[in-house]
Amino acid sequence: MFTDFKIIEGRPLTVQVKEYLKQWITKGKGRVDQKLPSTRELSTMLGISRNTLVTVYSELEEEGFIYTVHSKGSFVSKVGIASVPSWSMDWEKRLNTTAKQAVDYDLMKRDLRGEKGMINFASIAPDEKLFDLANVKRAFLDRMSLEGEILLNYGYAKGYKPLIQYLTGYMEAKGVDMEGKDILITNGFTEAYDIILSSLEVPQKHILCENPTHHTAIKISRLHGYEITGISMDQDGVRLDAFEQALKEQEFGLAYLTPSYHNPTGIVMSAEKRVEVLRLLAEHRIPLIEDGFNEELRYSGSHMAPLAAFGGEGNSIIYLGSFSKILFPGIRIGWIAADRELIDALVSVKRARNIHTSTLDQAVLYQYFHNGNFEKYLKRAKSEYKRKHELAHQYCSEYIPYKRLTGSGGLHLFIELDDVCNAREILADCYKQGVVYTAGDVFFTDGGGANTLRLGFSRVSDDELLQGIQIIGRAVKKRMEARQ
Amino acid sequence: MFTDFKIIEGRPLTVQVKEYLKQWITKGKGRVDQKLPSTRELSTMLGISRNTLVTVYSELEEEGFIYTVHSKGSFVSKVGIASVPSWSMDWEKRLNTTAKQAVDYDLMKRDLRGEKGMINFASIAPDEKLFDLANVKRAFLDRMSLEGEILLNYGYAKGYKPLIQYLTGYMEAKGVDMEGKDILITNGFTEAYDIILSSLEVPQKHILCENPTHHTAIKISRLHGYEITGISMDQDGVRLDAFEQALKEQEFGLAYLTPSYHNPTGIVMSAEKRVEVLRLLAEHRIPLIEDGFNEELRYSGSHMAPLAAFGGEGNSIIYLGSFSKILFPGIRIGWIAADRELIDALVSVKRARNIHTSTLDQAVLYQYFHNGNFEKYLKRAKSEYKRKHELAHQYCSEYIPYKRLTGSGGLHLFIELDDVCNAREILADCYKQGVVYTAGDVFFTDGGGANTLRLGFSRVSDDELLQGIQIIGRAVKKRMEARQ
Repeated sequence: MFTDFKIIEGRPLTVQVKEYLKQWITKGKGRVDQKLPSTRELSTMLGISRNTLVTVYSELEEEGFIYTVHSKGSFVSKVGIASVPSWSMDWEKRLNTTAKQAVDYDLMKRDLRGEKGMINFASIAPDEKLFDLANVKRAFLDRMSLEGEILLNYGYAKGYKPLIQYLTGYMEAKGVDMEGKDILITNGFTEAYDIILSSLEVPQKHILCENPTHHTAIKISRLHGYEITGISMDQDGVRLDAFEQALKEQEFGLAYLTPSYHNPTGIVMSAEKRVEVLRLLAEHRIPLIEDGFNEELRYSGSHMAPLAAFGGEGNSIIYLGSFSKILFPGIRIGWIAADRELIDALVSVKRARNIHTSTLDQAVLYQYFHNGNFEKYLKRAKSEYKRKHELAHQYCSEYIPYKRLTGSGGLHLFIELDDVCNAREILADCYKQGVVYTAGDVFFTDGGGANTLRLGFSRVSDDELLQGIQIIGRAVKKRMEARQ
Repeated sequence: MFTDFKIIEGRPLTVQVKEYLKQWITKGKGRVDQKLPSTRELSTMLGISRNTLVTVYSELEEEGFIYTVHSKGSFVSKVGIASVPSWSMDWEKRLNTTAKQAVDYDLMKRDLRGEKGMINFASIAPDEKLFDLANVKRAFLDRMSLEGEILLNYGYAKGYKPLIQYLTGYMEAKGVDMEGKDILITNGFTEAYDIILSSLEVPQKHILCENPTHHTAIKISRLHGYEITGISMDQDGVRLDAFEQALKEQEFGLAYLTPSYHNPTGIVMSAEKRVEVLRLLAEHRIPLIEDGFNEELRYSGSHMAPLAAFGGEGNSIIYLGSFSKILFPGIRIGWIAADRELIDALVSVKRARNIHTSTLDQAVLYQYFHNGNFEKYLKRAKSEYKRKHELAHQYCSEYIPYKRLTGSGGLHLFIELDDVCNAREILADCYKQGVVYTAGDVFFTDGGGANTLRLGFSRVSDDELLQGIQIIGRAVKKRMEARQ
């Protein structure tokens, strides 16, 4: 007893001793009716005040783990675990197709992951050194003081009202007419996309999108049994001729586009193309899911309205927003802005999924916006990311012989290598030298993209940027020379 | 311009003026090339410092909303919203069966809701006046200081490691052997149950459970196409003869039980029954989902191990835990404790759903536990809820002529009225008098329970408790007299 007891710093001793004794009893190490050491003995043994131990014993007695016999001492109670024939099953055989596919498509399990000390281009998460923690703390304390009780109790499935109001204005500032529309707060983009695909009945389970595209969207679409047709891209967005052709040849239930800062290519769709794409979708009456991914992180000067802003009074565009890549991914907040009746139904689906998104997170984020921190943070983050972006661009041009390099914003670049290059083979080579990136094939809807890769630069230092790109460049050249 | 501008207190003026102007431009109120008032004019007009306005204009120019001509002033840019044929669709016709069912089963939409000023017995959320906000703030600040950057960036789908470790110990203290098992953190019980039902392939889509049972579990089971057989209950849990009979007559894919503090009846399953139930399930090899609902809020003295503790080395029991009803529902944290391989697959499903549960929430909760606040809070909350529970029990016995009253813990009582009483009709009557409760039929798996109701007392004051129960009692009596 207590030979394996280790005191954890910063945690009250009463709690630690009590938990230890509970486990000692429930795990059967202490026999029923076994006498416990007196609090005096235990006090000497552990060097803990006797008062602490008196509290522990009295609480354990109250909870039924021990009993006391006057002037005899404390004893282990029968905690009621009788022996029952235990049995095991092979859970792997009990997984359904969707669960198995979720495992198969899980990049975190399939792909090479960056280990500590490596130069990691695989991540496109924001650089945490830029986080303004002081303002997040301020926002938390401000909101807790105002309505802490409300934040910690149940909220609404649709979301935290002040945040919904803020986002409504935010969408309007992007030019979106919110009349007849509403907002549902979700746990990030992923949940938003999943909830929509879970809820819609479409004439044809076939999605039209860009090729390549966001691998999470590919994964979720497939998990919901959708076929995917991806349209290849020019420097100003999806190729219109191919887009039009696809619409003629195939019936689609939905379109999914990321016009403002496309993942993984970083391409921004031109204003002219936006109009044409919408005209074609309207002609074929295909509802559109617009992914507003990172549109706040474009570095060029001109304002570019989202497709949802062109939709006018129509209700056929569902806009998905997220602050994950710009602000704090640890706070899982995204939103769906769409037709009011559709949102009303999705609210019930959301409630059946997880009741609502954390009120605490929504409130902290809201207060952070309210305090005016977002604009300031965005300015600072943009200027740093822009600098890194230019540096990465420069190094890639110097050291990596590529066929095409895209990305006019955001936290990553996308590279198309010579056709003889297999980005996975080159990755294996780079990995040995301590460099990891994302092989681009995971973003392709048609099994293509073997010669592409995505370089996330947000969490890589300037030195690492140079060093890492040089290593990739050498590996690419080696490959090209070997093939000549 | 600016006639409808309202200053919001506590929000930086630059941000407010900028947002106003952005919306003014994107909404087309400002024509392209229209001249804006000079910062001097606007300063006089709004009574805002000219410096603030200079900042606003320069930022708007940077973002492409306006342009400046030297010595002429600032003008509205073309923000690129061309006119596109907008079109609308009837989203209601595009909802699939699951979404429509989610709407139909949505109690928040279907049931009478308590309005402000009413005596509300419908809620079983904790009493927010008991929340120890100071310690939640402390936990937040402690954790932010230690690793704020980590909390705000991406985490792991499985959950925040320190919290998983804590919960592993917590389960062990309940007597559960965690060898070969693992934990997945979810957004509360609802997500845990939904993820499991989404992932399993069962020989027969039929669930065996208590009748009545948790309506969220009924809802989710039906959304996943499960049939439900509920077994009626005695004062010490499910009726064994009926349970055994059902297992003989019908093949079940899963069992779902809430043994430790059953919702809605508040019944605790006896130790003897636990053994028998598990023996029967083992005999028929039916995996069990155990809902650990509120087992921390029992008011009796003896420790009662969860079913998962009896499972020994077997892996056929999936335990679902949640702190929602005890601690803070606004922080959406629940967990699944189950076979390691099953958890590993569920991690991928979780990742495809919403990447992971808010790291911030998990970390705050972990730190709150670590600081030893949970035990103290629980003690305080239990003593208050116990007092309320006894009062509610007493008032019900005095004023409501019931057939059966159950609930030996938690935040509610469950009442079975005389067969001639329809709890919905009585509710309509009470509602007019400012009292609302939950009609019990929503908890029944077989369409029964018309004469039952659930009284949540956690958020009702002592005075309201008396007054509300008197009103219900009178309404019941009126009904009974009318039927005689």
